Amino acid sequence: MNTRQEVLDFVHHGAERFLPHLSIDCAIFGYHDHELKTLLIRHHGQENWSLPGGYIGRHETLTEAAHRILAEKTQLTGLFLQQFYTFGDSATRMNNIKTEQTHNTTYSKVGVSLSPGHWLSERTLSIGYYALVDYLQVVVTPEFLVDEYCWLNVADIPQELVYDHNEIIQKALLTLRAHIFQQPIGYNLLRDKFTLPEIHSLYETILCKQIDRRNFRKKLLTLGLIRQLDEQKKIGPHRSPFLYEFDLENYSRALEDGSILTF
Amino acid sequence: MNTRQEVLDFVHHGAERFLPHLSIDCAIFGYHDHELKTLLIRHHGQENWSLPGGYIGRHETLTEAAHRILAEKTQLTGLFLQQFYTFGDSATRMNNIKTEQTHNTTYSKVGVSLSPGHWLSERTLSIGYYALVDYLQVVVTPEFLVDEYCWLNVADIPQELVYDHNEIIQKALLTLRAHIFQQPIGYNLLRDKFTLPEIHSLYETILCKQIDRRNFRKKLLTLGLIRQLDEQKKIGPHRSPFLYEFDLENYSRALEDGSILTF
Repeated sequence: MNTRQEVLDFVHHGAERFLPHLSIDCAIFGYHDHELKTLLIRHHGQENWSLPGGYIGRHETLTEAAHRILAEKTQLTGLFLQQFYTFGDSATRMNNIKTEQTHNTTYSKVGVSLSPGHWLSERTLSIGYYALVDYLQVVVTPEFLVDEYCWLNVADIPQELVYDHNEIIQKALLTLRAHIFQQPIGYNLLRDKFTLPEIHSLYETILCKQIDRRNFRKKLLTLGLIRQLDEQKKIGPHRSPFLYEFDLENYSRALEDGSILTF
Repeated sequence: MNTRQEVLDFVHHGAERFLPHLSIDCAIFGYHDHELKTLLIRHHGQENWSLPGGYIGRHETLTEAAHRILAEKTQLTGLFLQQFYTFGDSATRMNNIKTEQTHNTTYSKVGVSLSPGHWLSERTLSIGYYALVDYLQVVVTPEFLVDEYCWLNVADIPQELVYDHNEIIQKALLTLRAHIFQQPIGYNLLRDKFTLPEIHSLYETILCKQIDRRNFRKKLLTLGLIRQLDEQKKIGPHRSPFLYEFDLENYSRALEDGSILTF
């Protein structure tokens, strides 16, 4: 929502357009400079950061809602998106009073105070999706109720995100870790051509463990998942590592039959 | 809901007690006679079978709701339960007319016709949970609106379950397959002591492929995940296979660090 009028319209008429008691929260991951980063936003009046998210239209499917929200936030379509968990347990989700206070601080920007029982302050379950983006392609859309955004290394996420957003991001990361041998996560996070240190560092970050680099390279090449190219990346006068790319056919097959299931 | 009065109360006052637009559907799996089975029910007036399910109380957490629903259906508590996906896309979920007709057929048993816009006929997303039960311990609770139940081999599930329940059960099975090396699925489906053919057949069923039995046995024993006992199962005069049990410590560690990630 980019304008004051859109926000007012949302507050007063949103209940007609969106399903109550439900939201989507997004863990948007990008990989850059050997770091796995996630996008955080800070709503107006809030001290703590949060994950980007949105609501589900009454006439759109759940998957359409997730893609729409991601497109609105990043201006990207066709993203690799996976639902990972629905959150409905935390005390902050069960406790409407705190939600109402948080929302009122944000919506004060349009001069609105949400009445008790307003649909935006009711108990809301959240369906979590993770998205893998090309970090350099993302254009974070300015939004009227968002004061600030940032990309943070996943290791540097503050302990005090709003509500249960720390739990959501942790679950997203655990899911990436569980999925990395079953979903084209490496393919969707890396650029088309990458160096060995880049792919090695990505897998170490997601798996949260040190992996022997020579065995890693050997396994990926032996299985034909990646291939070395005749190009080199110019980093400096004495550093020109070879570039690699995924062999999509072998990679897809390995994901399908589980042949790369461990390092 | 076991009585006519409970059903009437639910129809007329359920909206105060349960969250609208949400339900939980359960894929309840049990393992018996070398078959992975699932529990299906047939609601009053319906031709097609469905998965058991229920609604989420306004004052209970999502996880509490899942456990409560499972306890109501099976009379078992402390079950191994995993959320696997939230369904909100299918045409049958988006198309309220068909839902209203289906519900009206069932609720006609208490002489009620749901008005248009009744909360039970509105678009409802479903949060899927799978439960792993000891087949012999389950006592399926008779319910007023359920005419029949059955345990079916997962390979024999009819193509025409209600709504998108075929999609839900397929997703549950795919999740079991993805989880079998990360969650104690074998442990929760098998009895405390089992024969090698039983555990072998279970893994073949879940992984949907043939596994060489000798290598399978060798890997499980070498990793110390199972141990052979000094007992034998009496099947017949010439058949007394040894019994095995899980070594929980090694098994948990293997699930944690992924050492058994393939067969």
